[in-house]
Amino acid sequence: VDSALFLTTDYFLEGGTLVARPIITLTTDYGTNDHLVGTLKGVILKINPDANIVDITHNITPYDLLDGALAIGSAYSYFPARTIHVVVVDPSVGTDRRPLLVSGETQYFVAPDNGVLSLIYEREESLLVRHANVEHYYLQPVSKTFHGRDIFAPIAAWLSKGSQAASMGDEITDYKKFAMPKPKPAEGALKGVVLRVDSFGNLVTNFRPEDLPASALEHGAVQFQIGSQTVSRLVDTFAKGNPGEPFAYIGSNGFVEFGVNRGNASKALGAGRGVSVALTAS
Amino acid sequence: VDSALFLTTDYFLEGGTLVARPIITLTTDYGTNDHLVGTLKGVILKINPDANIVDITHNITPYDLLDGALAIGSAYSYFPARTIHVVVVDPSVGTDRRPLLVSGETQYFVAPDNGVLSLIYEREESLLVRHANVEHYYLQPVSKTFHGRDIFAPIAAWLSKGSQAASMGDEITDYKKFAMPKPKPAEGALKGVVLRVDSFGNLVTNFRPEDLPASALEHGAVQFQIGSQTVSRLVDTFAKGNPGEPFAYIGSNGFVEFGVNRGNASKALGAGRGVSVALTAS
Amino acid sequence: VDSALFLTTDYFLEGGTLVARPIITLTTDYGTNDHLVGTLKGVILKINPDANIVDITHNITPYDLLDGALAIGSAYSYFPARTIHVVVVDPSVGTDRRPLLVSGETQYFVAPDNGVLSLIYEREESLLVRHANVEHYYLQPVSKTFHGRDIFAPIAAWLSKGSQAASMGDEITDYKKFAMPKPKPAEGALKGVVLRVDSFGNLVTNFRPEDLPASALEHGAVQFQIGSQTVSRLVDTFAKGNPGEPFAYIGSNGFVEFGVNRGNASKALGAGRGVSVALTAS
Repeated sequence: VDSALFLTTDYFLEGGTLVARPIITLTTDYGTNDHLVGTLKGVILKINPDANIVDITHNITPYDLLDGALAIGSAYSYFPARTIHVVVVDPSVGTDRRPLLVSGETQYFVAPDNGVLSLIYEREESLLVRHANVEHYYLQPVSKTFHGRDIFAPIAAWLSKGSQAASMGDEITDYKKFAMPKPKPAEGALKGVVLRVDSFGNLVTNFRPEDLPASALEHGAVQFQIGSQTVSRLVDTFAKGNPGEPFAYIGSNGFVEFGVNRGNASKALGAGRGVSVALTAS
Repeated sequence: VDSALFLTTDYFLEGGTLVARPIITLTTDYGTNDHLVGTLKGVILKINPDANIVDITHNITPYDLLDGALAIGSAYSYFPARTIHVVVVDPSVGTDRRPLLVSGETQYFVAPDNGVLSLIYEREESLLVRHANVEHYYLQPVSKTFHGRDIFAPIAAWLSKGSQAASMGDEITDYKKFAMPKPKPAEGALKGVVLRVDSFGNLVTNFRPEDLPASALEHGAVQFQIGSQTVSRLVDTFAKGNPGEPFAYIGSNGFVEFGVNRGNASKALGAGRGVSVALTAS
Repeated sequence: VDSALFLTTDYFLEGGTLVARPIITLTTDYGTNDHLVGTLKGVILKINPDANIVDITHNITPYDLLDGALAIGSAYSYFPARTIHVVVVDPSVGTDRRPLLVSGETQYFVAPDNGVLSLIYEREESLLVRHANVEHYYLQPVSKTFHGRDIFAPIAAWLSKGSQAASMGDEITDYKKFAMPKPKPAEGALKGVVLRVDSFGNLVTNFRPEDLPASALEHGAVQFQIGSQTVSRLVDTFAKGNPGEPFAYIGSNGFVEFGVNRGNASKALGAGRGVSVALTAS
């Protein structure tokens, strides 16, 4: 795909025909206990019965923009060109925060303008951000509490059906973006934080391999302090951890994580999201 | 769609061809921890590989017919015509309770005859309810414990493949239906109930906007009593709530709900499903 | 389908054309709280946009091979011929444990060589197990921690797109297989175990109907001891249980289970996975 060309031509028309089964992904904090996600899918399929809807996750911590940013930022690049990603973590639903339609290098993003796409802004080399305010594409009447149903899902569905992004709103440049928290020097150490706990109990930190001393990557010796506990080994596979021993490793998503071989690091270290992590020595 | 016509002709044949990818939705209390939902999908795809299966939710409170009725009742109208909704909350599986195939105005419903479709019966203007007892469409042998797999999923799949609803059973009129609980006057107040708690901790009550005094909708002043706590503001968006303040709003589904801006109303009010709510003054 | 023929010819080519929407199922212990499952689906759809991806479950108990074996073993036979099942419960990811591509009678299985396919090996009459070591089909670079993304999902996707199983690795016969735990005589009783607790709180044991005395199946009289509690009735439907009474029944999957009519047997019996169950008399 020629991404420059892609961004300036009709997205879903190639020689006059539509993409066969356009992919729309969903990332929300709606949970899966009630009808919300089902309703979103109904709205999309009513507009475009050919849409191929894929759940990324609906268990983003409620209202948590960083958690949402990490989920979509970790998954999107594995999807094919022309995928449309709907991301709804929207604590300000019903206010005048803007709905966005973002054209990345080869994919699209539909989300509220609250920074939940910050990792996309950071990683995509070319971007065009639109304020998707053309109400023609909304589901009417628009509620004050469920813009996933009334605004974000319909925009994605119409886009997948061949509607032009350019017809949905004008470009803006003052969209909201937050910086991912990076480890900072303090008290002779580098201080970071646990960004999230995954399903296995592994702790995902905001340390990157480039934050570690070269010797750590070569010899596997590190020194992390989490509360009163110390993690002193960097391994490349879980199986190299001794029973019950918390160790560090570079996660599949490029962050330093803490894990326990066949165990639960969050329990072993008594630590969860937001807990401080100090890299104290090399 | 001409619904009158629709209900009296071959459902899935238009000029001799089938609908491309017929949608079958699933609403169950099976949970997602084991193979049950996967098995249902396998059964459907083995009969009709072209079915587009959409999960509404599998986390209905086990055996809870009201919870199931609310979920399907909230979601179904957003789906396109010809969608087939399978609803399995079935505490009496294996008894002689009847399996139903319901033709609504433009959509179908497959469910046990236990009232779980009560909201559908209430909201659809025209209905034809069949006792789906033609065992030719069942998966044999039929178990006594898993009719989702053996009866409901196969009926939906054959229907989606062009089989005629009329061939699956005769019309009945004595199907089970429960009335949604409505607020009632008592002790100088209007007494209602919390129907459910959503993923954000919002409390969904059985009050409707028409139960509120006109002044409430105009000026936003209400007085709800939940246990020892009072909710005295009706707002139109979450963002208008003060930090930590529980408020009332009209939910996207048309019920009065209680929420807390970026918080959890269930925790703030110490209240959950089944808790009594009194509208004490206007 | 002629399974003998099927296993020796091009799997996805019939008269030169590909299967329309090949089904790929996913069974993992990844949970649904983060991006992992979404990433897997992206990888598959990037290779084969026509794949029809079906979740069996992502809530296998982390690292639990028996739980994974039970889930896929219970669901797979309900899927159509040519379905490809991806099963990722992989405590030894990153070691030299082998990735497998298994051709069953009519379906495929992609999984680590750790026994998680043991029930498949037990139930399929003909099998061909390959060590899927041809890295051409992997996603590069291959991480040490996320082989679901880098190895298992890509193998399934290429297979679904018409790549030949024979090109993906050579046959092996020394694959790992564990025996399902079977009830054993001890102290005058037959001793079994609770294999899992389902979403309703029902206890699935490793007893089979053939382990029961003939009189039990005829007259419904059994005597199971679980801790200090006794279960003395075998019924054929839940509705035959008295309120609060734990009873035994033959589950839809062929195991003896304990349930409570509209209740939770795990709570009623104070028992969960791994708890011992004794069949003490007939």
